[in-house]
Amino acid sequence: MNNIALIAKPHSETAKPVAQKIYTFLKEKNKNILLDERAASVLNLPSNSDEEIKENSELIIVLGGDGTLISAIRLIDSKDIPILGINLGRLGFLTETKVNEAIQTLENILADNYKCEKRMKLHGEILNNDNDNFQMEVLNDIVIHKGALARIIEMDVFINDMFVNTYRSDGLIIATPTGSTAYSLAAGGPIVFPTMDSILITPICPHSLTLRPIIIPDDSIIKIVIKSEDEKIFITFDGQIGKKLEKGDKILIKKSTNFARLIIPQNRNYFSLLREKLNWGNK
Amino acid sequence: MNNIALIAKPHSETAKPVAQKIYTFLKEKNKNILLDERAASVLNLPSNSDEEIKENSELIIVLGGDGTLISAIRLIDSKDIPILGINLGRLGFLTETKVNEAIQTLENILADNYKCEKRMKLHGEILNNDNDNFQMEVLNDIVIHKGALARIIEMDVFINDMFVNTYRSDGLIIATPTGSTAYSLAAGGPIVFPTMDSILITPICPHSLTLRPIIIPDDSIIKIVIKSEDEKIFITFDGQIGKKLEKGDKILIKKSTNFARLIIPQNRNYFSLLREKLNWGNK
Amino acid sequence: MNNIALIAKPHSETAKPVAQKIYTFLKEKNKNILLDERAASVLNLPSNSDEEIKENSELIIVLGGDGTLISAIRLIDSKDIPILGINLGRLGFLTETKVNEAIQTLENILADNYKCEKRMKLHGEILNNDNDNFQMEVLNDIVIHKGALARIIEMDVFINDMFVNTYRSDGLIIATPTGSTAYSLAAGGPIVFPTMDSILITPICPHSLTLRPIIIPDDSIIKIVIKSEDEKIFITFDGQIGKKLEKGDKILIKKSTNFARLIIPQNRNYFSLLREKLNWGNK
Amino acid sequence: MNNIALIAKPHSETAKPVAQKIYTFLKEKNKNILLDERAASVLNLPSNSDEEIKENSELIIVLGGDGTLISAIRLIDSKDIPILGINLGRLGFLTETKVNEAIQTLENILADNYKCEKRMKLHGEILNNDNDNFQMEVLNDIVIHKGALARIIEMDVFINDMFVNTYRSDGLIIATPTGSTAYSLAAGGPIVFPTMDSILITPICPHSLTLRPIIIPDDSIIKIVIKSEDEKIFITFDGQIGKKLEKGDKILIKKSTNFARLIIPQNRNYFSLLREKLNWGNK
Repeated sequence: MNNIALIAKPHSETAKPVAQKIYTFLKEKNKNILLDERAASVLNLPSNSDEEIKENSELIIVLGGDGTLISAIRLIDSKDIPILGINLGRLGFLTETKVNEAIQTLENILADNYKCEKRMKLHGEILNNDNDNFQMEVLNDIVIHKGALARIIEMDVFINDMFVNTYRSDGLIIATPTGSTAYSLAAGGPIVFPTMDSILITPICPHSLTLRPIIIPDDSIIKIVIKSEDEKIFITFDGQIGKKLEKGDKILIKKSTNFARLIIPQNRNYFSLLREKLNWGNK
Repeated sequence: MNNIALIAKPHSETAKPVAQKIYTFLKEKNKNILLDERAASVLNLPSNSDEEIKENSELIIVLGGDGTLISAIRLIDSKDIPILGINLGRLGFLTETKVNEAIQTLENILADNYKCEKRMKLHGEILNNDNDNFQMEVLNDIVIHKGALARIIEMDVFINDMFVNTYRSDGLIIATPTGSTAYSLAAGGPIVFPTMDSILITPICPHSLTLRPIIIPDDSIIKIVIKSEDEKIFITFDGQIGKKLEKGDKILIKKSTNFARLIIPQNRNYFSLLREKLNWGNK
Repeated sequence: MNNIALIAKPHSETAKPVAQKIYTFLKEKNKNILLDERAASVLNLPSNSDEEIKENSELIIVLGGDGTLISAIRLIDSKDIPILGINLGRLGFLTETKVNEAIQTLENILADNYKCEKRMKLHGEILNNDNDNFQMEVLNDIVIHKGALARIIEMDVFINDMFVNTYRSDGLIIATPTGSTAYSLAAGGPIVFPTMDSILITPICPHSLTLRPIIIPDDSIIKIVIKSEDEKIFITFDGQIGKKLEKGDKILIKKSTNFARLIIPQNRNYFSLLREKLNWGNK
Repeated sequence: MNNIALIAKPHSETAKPVAQKIYTFLKEKNKNILLDERAASVLNLPSNSDEEIKENSELIIVLGGDGTLISAIRLIDSKDIPILGINLGRLGFLTETKVNEAIQTLENILADNYKCEKRMKLHGEILNNDNDNFQMEVLNDIVIHKGALARIIEMDVFINDMFVNTYRSDGLIIATPTGSTAYSLAAGGPIVFPTMDSILITPICPHSLTLRPIIIPDDSIIKIVIKSEDEKIFITFDGQIGKKLEKGDKILIKKSTNFARLIIPQNRNYFSLLREKLNWGNK
């Protein structure tokens, strides 16, 4: 590993000392360091373009929370470069490494002594009348949601061309196992072990109380057809990119051929993470 | 009762024959009939102004669903004129009378042989920096909700000046008992018997999984302070009137001094309504 | 207040130093101290009978958790003697006073400077063929539950002689507002402000997914008729007293004419208690 | 297929005419018909032993509901003989064929024109101090539950020797995807597509509100250690066989090497079944 990218949470004061420490450490190891705009701003150094980072990095170090890591995944797009998430404050579902473990973890990684977890991504595509055919990949979820002033939206959902149901709800979450502990959990979804080959469909405040979350195999193709006419409807990808939808728009969602590769702590127990994040021990 | 208003669901084909039947029936009884714009359009007759209807009606007949009845409540505002809801299709929580029972029910009402249920309303007020001081009353609920592209909103909630919690969620529903079977139910709230003296606070997809719906006495004063800065936030009154909120805006909610007076079927059992609406019998 | 009872959690090592401190404090104030069997055993002193405690106490001090306080309420039965709950470890919903606040709180109480909260109780009665007519009062809840090997039980529920539904479930919880944060919460029920005039009906794992918790006015009379024939069914009162039920048994539940009187911390905010008990602040 | 077994719901009046029709049909086709005790009693004919049925059948026809089919699965144990479930009344999750489709379906099966779905089973084993080492396989679920008079039970759960959590709850459901629509659904679990390679862990009324259902890969080994001392605890296998558990007992659960083979209607859409069973269309 010679080319290592550093990506930081924007406007984060706490990022600075960690970024400097990591930068110095990598320089001493004679590594070529690429900085995204945000890390460059934190370090007061020139930045590399997203394209350079995407094409040349062999390791990505993310300083921030889960949101920062998600944006790094979006930056490298189809490349499955190993990513190390270092959380600046609270433990994250995706940023499990603590600041004080950062240098030791990097030592191990450079000594080729580390563990990677392949995380499934979803590929979403909007088919609409304008034929502009927007496509995007996500690590957590694709969410279709009513506008704030709308009352309810209607969608027909199909899995492998089998009609599932007409969903009348605030919205619908299509999540990866990784995304099961993000928005889907707040909407009442279950926890899916992160390496499971599965897709999770969680309705948001469904009108029908029996419309429960459904888990389907990862080779399923999901088609959603928007039926509502007068209400505003939006689709968001990993909570970061949004588009407006219209009646008749179709959304196709399937497993991506690409993966994210998260570097996770050695001897790490996923359930410890759950216990800490969900306060299981405390009550 | 001499002045009787007729309010109809807009663009409803099924409303026409019922509206005509009721109109003829009332004419034969020499009643003065007031028509709102929508009923007038259905009957092809001149309409009365909302103001006339509000000031002069002694009985309001609503043809439509719960949404139509809610808009009639809004029209008469602080007046507690008895309202008869006749549902044009599916049984409603507020429109319990069927089309084929309409004339007999009206006969009974004119013979002063009917049962009214007083339903509590909530009074909501927005206090913001512009001092424009919007106020409104609702029969079902006041909802604060994030915009479709926002990720989560933050609000501080106080009850009688006691700090309750900082809510991090998609939104918050403050509902009357009547509203407990509307949006709040879809968000995971309980069913509150409609004549209970209480207010229901139901979070929408709260980030904290232990943040459950809370039922408080009807003499409570609820204060909500918006803390989110960058996200779009909206407030809606009975799902029909919406306003944008900003950081620092305060919302004060308390029981209204006015009531809605719903005419309900004689010998009616509220739980039959629940059984039918919620399919309890079927599974 | 001259006659003060002390009731302790059985087999609690932590109870001893607190019990001794309180005992010494009350002796110095020349109070007549009554000890239940458990407190007497902790202090190595002779005990008073439950009857003496019930008839003569003007204040009850409970050392332990919510379970110990519940058993003290059962001991004094219809008497509404003020009760002070001192928790020996974790904060309780009913035992809000900490060990290190105990003496100061008692000073205040003896100076007539304290706040009491009247908490509603429920009265339950079993009507069966044997006519043995068991009756009991509870502070938290009356629970009807299937035996561990049974699959599901069936009950008809009536409120004020109106048929509600046939409940097919693991069981049914009839709770006071105080009981809303006990078993009912684990079964999916809402939080009811403790001084609300209401009764909460929460089904346990209902077969019908739309069978949600219901809140009804406190003057309601609930009748439950057992329909299951071959399954074992039990009823428990405040989780402490249990009875077996048979097909055809009827259970009548209504608000008791008696109250529990809990001494609560001055300037106490009920929602602080919720925040601490439910970890609201932490996530 | 020459040896065909017929298994019927006990004491079912509606089973008789269908059983006779099927019996006559199979006789005309010169099939060797094996009757379990219950089917024999319905037809007034001599019965075959369970052992004969298990060893010789090439097809099992079940007349009844899901419970009857579950008992047939138990009867054939490790054999993966194709099973056709004909429901006598309401559509079942496992008995999807209607009475009036029975003969046509059998015609198709005998013409080797049918569709089988392999359903995963779980293998459970109790390791206790008495070393009696009870083992059993299930199609739906293994449930650990408190006795009716117990208040809460405590279990430590491990997955692949990783500590998950100490569960404080009414109980715990370990379910196959097939079992996700049985008891687990009533306890708040998600719907898992029946052919998914996964195991579902659903707590029953957990004390900790953040303890949500978890879905794990089907190659996981689950170990549960009973920690409660004074409370009665039971384990049930597919809701039909029960055992008492003691403190220190360990339960090991993993995917069975055997499958159940359910004959399902051709062109059948699993989601139609969900829609009908869960009343999705109606509200």
